[in-house]
Amino acid sequence: MVRKRVVLTFSGGMDSTTLLYQLLSQGHHVQALGIDYGQRHRKELGAAAGICARVGVSFKSADLSAVTGFLAGSALTSPDVEIPSGEYDPESMKVTVVPNRNMLMLAVALAWAISSECDTVAYAAHAGDHEVYPDCRPEFVRALARTAGLCHYEPIELTAPFLHLTKVDIVRLGNRLDVPFDLTWSCYRGEDLHCGRCGTCRERSGAFARAGVADPTVYRIRPDSAPAGIPGSIGAQ
Amino acid sequence: MVRKRVVLTFSGGMDSTTLLYQLLSQGHHVQALGIDYGQRHRKELGAAAGICARVGVSFKSADLSAVTGFLAGSALTSPDVEIPSGEYDPESMKVTVVPNRNMLMLAVALAWAISSECDTVAYAAHAGDHEVYPDCRPEFVRALARTAGLCHYEPIELTAPFLHLTKVDIVRLGNRLDVPFDLTWSCYRGEDLHCGRCGTCRERSGAFARAGVADPTVYRIRPDSAPAGIPGSIGAQ
Repeated sequence: MVRKRVVLTFSGGMDSTTLLYQLLSQGHHVQALGIDYGQRHRKELGAAAGICARVGVSFKSADLSAVTGFLAGSALTSPDVEIPSGEYDPESMKVTVVPNRNMLMLAVALAWAISSECDTVAYAAHAGDHEVYPDCRPEFVRALARTAGLCHYEPIELTAPFLHLTKVDIVRLGNRLDVPFDLTWSCYRGEDLHCGRCGTCRERSGAFARAGVADPTVYRIRPDSAPAGIPGSIGAQ
Repeated sequence: MVRKRVVLTFSGGMDSTTLLYQLLSQGHHVQALGIDYGQRHRKELGAAAGICARVGVSFKSADLSAVTGFLAGSALTSPDVEIPSGEYDPESMKVTVVPNRNMLMLAVALAWAISSECDTVAYAAHAGDHEVYPDCRPEFVRALARTAGLCHYEPIELTAPFLHLTKVDIVRLGNRLDVPFDLTWSCYRGEDLHCGRCGTCRERSGAFARAGVADPTVYRIRPDSAPAGIPGSIGAQ
């Protein structure tokens, strides 16, 4: 097997932590990139640093807050916009979109890959994100991967191995890889505990329930049920 | 004619200033985006702001210096690397490449376009850049344009109308559009006058000479001749 040198875009959430563990289990060299885009939930950057320290992976956080500061209209960066507390569905979550967030994040990751002589950039976009975020769609990822192959003298490989996995698939995979899910952070509110009410808390809780994996998360208020919008598995799709 | 709402990536140099004047002459709404990537030549951002004030175009500068600060190996951001003072050719200019600079810059421009309801992003990559900067090649621009069409709910058009023009063509076009070339800035050293010795000063001087247009630039040391690497025109290419 070829040992790749990988820059992983890393939020400290369930998806990118599972991808971190998968890449390490495959023997690759990984360096993790967090993005501080001025989000309310900087708490996740702390989770990200802690997880990386645990597995001996270098973690670097790039500050994009000066850039996103002038981009209006996102609940994740603006104190004037209410965090949606309903389901994780397209209508309630659209407000959380940072414009062009993935291209920004991946452009930084590619730059870091070039400057530190890595050959691969990995990120953990998954099937549940497709209809919520335009820049998580497979066609966007394909187009950006082609661009990544041309942005430098030597091509950089852009890989999103979870693109066709659901959150439930990721919980099952992470469970097999012994991912410390208790250390990961999902909640869009940056408080001391997961709130249990926002869309990502409900998605998180529902994914554990449907995967049949014990949920180690301590929620302030126990999410009452799995959200309706989360498919169990897309199976043969 | 459709009046587009355009975000123009704008450095205050000859190329992007000529594109600014062309877009305005075509009746488009333009807002200009400068990028502060920690370069030595912040002087160009001052030139950019001054030119925009003159034509009544809003100018905004996005600070990427926190991001590029951790990216090593570029003469434009690192005080440890000598600016090449020879010809504007691939070998001497490679050292000036900020890793993945154009994707970073255009990702910010696309984000600003989305958040301010613009439909187009324009930038002034030209034929002379192709062999120096991998992310100025037509195939890179095509791939990124395709990605730009997918990064949001509504596609954003990415346009690079000078992609097949040489610097000489741009001088001639700018001359017809009454571009105030005396206000534009090219020199990679951020001193009070153009140095006349670096690759971009020699390229600038040579382009005026070959275009048969009077060069209004005040150089500290008059460039002695047109650099050998600049083609006069690529004509039917």
